[in-house]
Amino acid sequence: MPKILLSVNAGSSSVKISVYEASLSQEPQEIAETRIDGLTAPPPQLTYIRGTQSICKDKKLEGERVASQNDAFKFMLEQLIADKDFSAISNKEDIAIVCHRVVHGGDYEIPQIINEDTYHHLEALTDLAPLHNAPALEIVKFLLKELPEAKNVAVFDSEFHQSIPEHIRTYPINQEIAKKNKLRKYGFHGISYSFITRSVAEFVGKKESETSLIILHLGSGASACAVKNGKSWDTSMGLTPLAGLPGATRSGNVDPSLVFHYATNVGKLSPSSTESLHISRAEEILNKESGWNALTGTTNFGTIASSDDPKMNLAFDIFVDRILGYVGSYYVSLRGKVDALVFAGGIGEKSDLLRKRVTDEASCLGFEIDEELNGKKVKDVVQEVGKKEAKHRTLVCKTNEQFEMARFVAVDEKLFG
Amino acid sequence: MPKILLSVNAGSSSVKISVYEASLSQEPQEIAETRIDGLTAPPPQLTYIRGTQSICKDKKLEGERVASQNDAFKFMLEQLIADKDFSAISNKEDIAIVCHRVVHGGDYEIPQIINEDTYHHLEALTDLAPLHNAPALEIVKFLLKELPEAKNVAVFDSEFHQSIPEHIRTYPINQEIAKKNKLRKYGFHGISYSFITRSVAEFVGKKESETSLIILHLGSGASACAVKNGKSWDTSMGLTPLAGLPGATRSGNVDPSLVFHYATNVGKLSPSSTESLHISRAEEILNKESGWNALTGTTNFGTIASSDDPKMNLAFDIFVDRILGYVGSYYVSLRGKVDALVFAGGIGEKSDLLRKRVTDEASCLGFEIDEELNGKKVKDVVQEVGKKEAKHRTLVCKTNEQFEMARFVAVDEKLFG
Repeated sequence: MPKILLSVNAGSSSVKISVYEASLSQEPQEIAETRIDGLTAPPPQLTYIRGTQSICKDKKLEGERVASQNDAFKFMLEQLIADKDFSAISNKEDIAIVCHRVVHGGDYEIPQIINEDTYHHLEALTDLAPLHNAPALEIVKFLLKELPEAKNVAVFDSEFHQSIPEHIRTYPINQEIAKKNKLRKYGFHGISYSFITRSVAEFVGKKESETSLIILHLGSGASACAVKNGKSWDTSMGLTPLAGLPGATRSGNVDPSLVFHYATNVGKLSPSSTESLHISRAEEILNKESGWNALTGTTNFGTIASSDDPKMNLAFDIFVDRILGYVGSYYVSLRGKVDALVFAGGIGEKSDLLRKRVTDEASCLGFEIDEELNGKKVKDVVQEVGKKEAKHRTLVCKTNEQFEMARFVAVDEKLFG
Repeated sequence: MPKILLSVNAGSSSVKISVYEASLSQEPQEIAETRIDGLTAPPPQLTYIRGTQSICKDKKLEGERVASQNDAFKFMLEQLIADKDFSAISNKEDIAIVCHRVVHGGDYEIPQIINEDTYHHLEALTDLAPLHNAPALEIVKFLLKELPEAKNVAVFDSEFHQSIPEHIRTYPINQEIAKKNKLRKYGFHGISYSFITRSVAEFVGKKESETSLIILHLGSGASACAVKNGKSWDTSMGLTPLAGLPGATRSGNVDPSLVFHYATNVGKLSPSSTESLHISRAEEILNKESGWNALTGTTNFGTIASSDDPKMNLAFDIFVDRILGYVGSYYVSLRGKVDALVFAGGIGEKSDLLRKRVTDEASCLGFEIDEELNGKKVKDVVQEVGKKEAKHRTLVCKTNEQFEMARFVAVDEKLFG
């Protein structure tokens, strides 16, 4: 008898729930998917797919009290239970396992079962990334109380990067303080990189342990990863998701002294800090008030990519330049042994224009775009967009973080139970 | 009749003075060189070369009051005047022009003559880089008062990088604030990059405007530069010299939120701030208390390179990794059109081991070290260290910032007068 497993992905302005039927050591089967977007730009919008049927899409939730990620989770949970045509969950006790994407896992190398006793371990990590871990934790806390029978599993976005070698993950700072305060490169988007590495290895017909890739996960949060023989070797994000590539509202790498010239009192707590969450004004500026939104006034990269406005072009060119920096850097770091350059994430999947620019401008390394393949809609999990005769392949991958979390649990007897 | 021209290079713990005989549109001829090192690790040490004769080398200045850069400058100036065997300067009025290396030049594209009236322009720039501009300014101020007949010329380390295109120099942050506070990539070591570009173009027999290079200026301050058709296209330092590669006491790029997890109150002014110099505790930590000194306890890279100690090896590996990142990044940024990879600066000149590691690990781009050439002492201004049959050349350049400053003035009638 399969178990009902939920994968919960709480982002900065959205929550996604994917519902799976899962049996030990088997691939989880998705039976429903629901999401609420636009938490930071109300009214929030609901999308609900049951099986293969689209029940609603971007339906505005006017008049509903859906402000936080936890509100959104509760709303969707109640709706799944109330839906008479969705027999898998008729009451909350039908839910056996809930996996949560937790951004910052500190030194955790594998997913963790969370109960009342171990919850405080997660809270301690939140100090390292208050802006990023808080939404998931709020939902875990709610479930520990309201669904005491369900098993909660925290899956960390930093796990995949535990293999990054010491000389790459160490910051050249005082090491006593670094150890005490846990300051090193962690890296994120690891659930996605794990999915992509496995899927691409299968696509190119190699063992994961023999597959080396440069992966670009490009969305409103964007990062790059060098995968060496199936494992993370380097990634662009750092101690927090702020480092590396710019994002929709994130600056990415800037001179570390820049923020002190941006405003006064940047070290002070931001007004949005709470008793348990300490966020400096600096971190808020660089995480929430920068990126291409600050350059163009829109977080929508599609609008930027298709515009002739010089401001939009500048934002596009900046993004391409910073991406190419990582492509070159990781190419050398992998000593040129690269099975493929892989585009993923919302922008990586949708923007053929960005893929073309990046690939064209990295042609000196042996990547070449095939314009016809690149123009096709991305339907398969992995799809070729590079020329057959090119030295290295260029691919697109439809990453699936919720599936990957469900799979982590289903393949592990200790977690699945 | 040639003029006596002094080139003054005030660093964080040293001051160098090179004395030239200069005539308009001719190459300046060096007639003496004197330097004081170890200002931050007393007693300071004096080195003095007159013509081709070494008068003293690392002579400890015990009991002398030489604490600041200005003290050191005064000490050496008095010594040059007092030296009966140095006929070029018998009193201070013999000095016609003094060029000063000023780190941060803001938007200045060419060297500036500084007088009492324009001095405040330099002071205003100091806000952007108080740790870096202050030593030179102290000496300029002294000379304006004590040598009113001499012409003072500020030569900026950021000048060479004014050609960096907008999409590379722009930070993805709020552009209103960026413009108001002058926040962008400036880049430094430009006097050195200017010397190297000219010298290497000559060595490879091409016009400067057709020469493209990846240059590594590696010293206790380290940076990389992509030169495209003779002009700076990108460089690793940013708004200030903190960004990019690590240095002896500088962290280089770190997650911009790292410092807020390093200590509390990092936004506050450091105790070493003065009324006119505002230095945050964060900038002090990342500029002065980090880098390989924080990892190993020594600022001497030679000791690190030749040690078997795991801490030293880690520092070496970190430096190599970060350097290779820029080599790969700039290779792509230059679309693979690279005439040579050039090593310069104290470490670039002296550490054949570092040159070998970097070149070996960048072999996938077509760089190859020639072990015999690489083992030779660097005597010429530019010397080959790469294999003849390699796709791209690898060179070492003995950079000479003082000469470059003197040359800037000698070739420019407006400055030379």
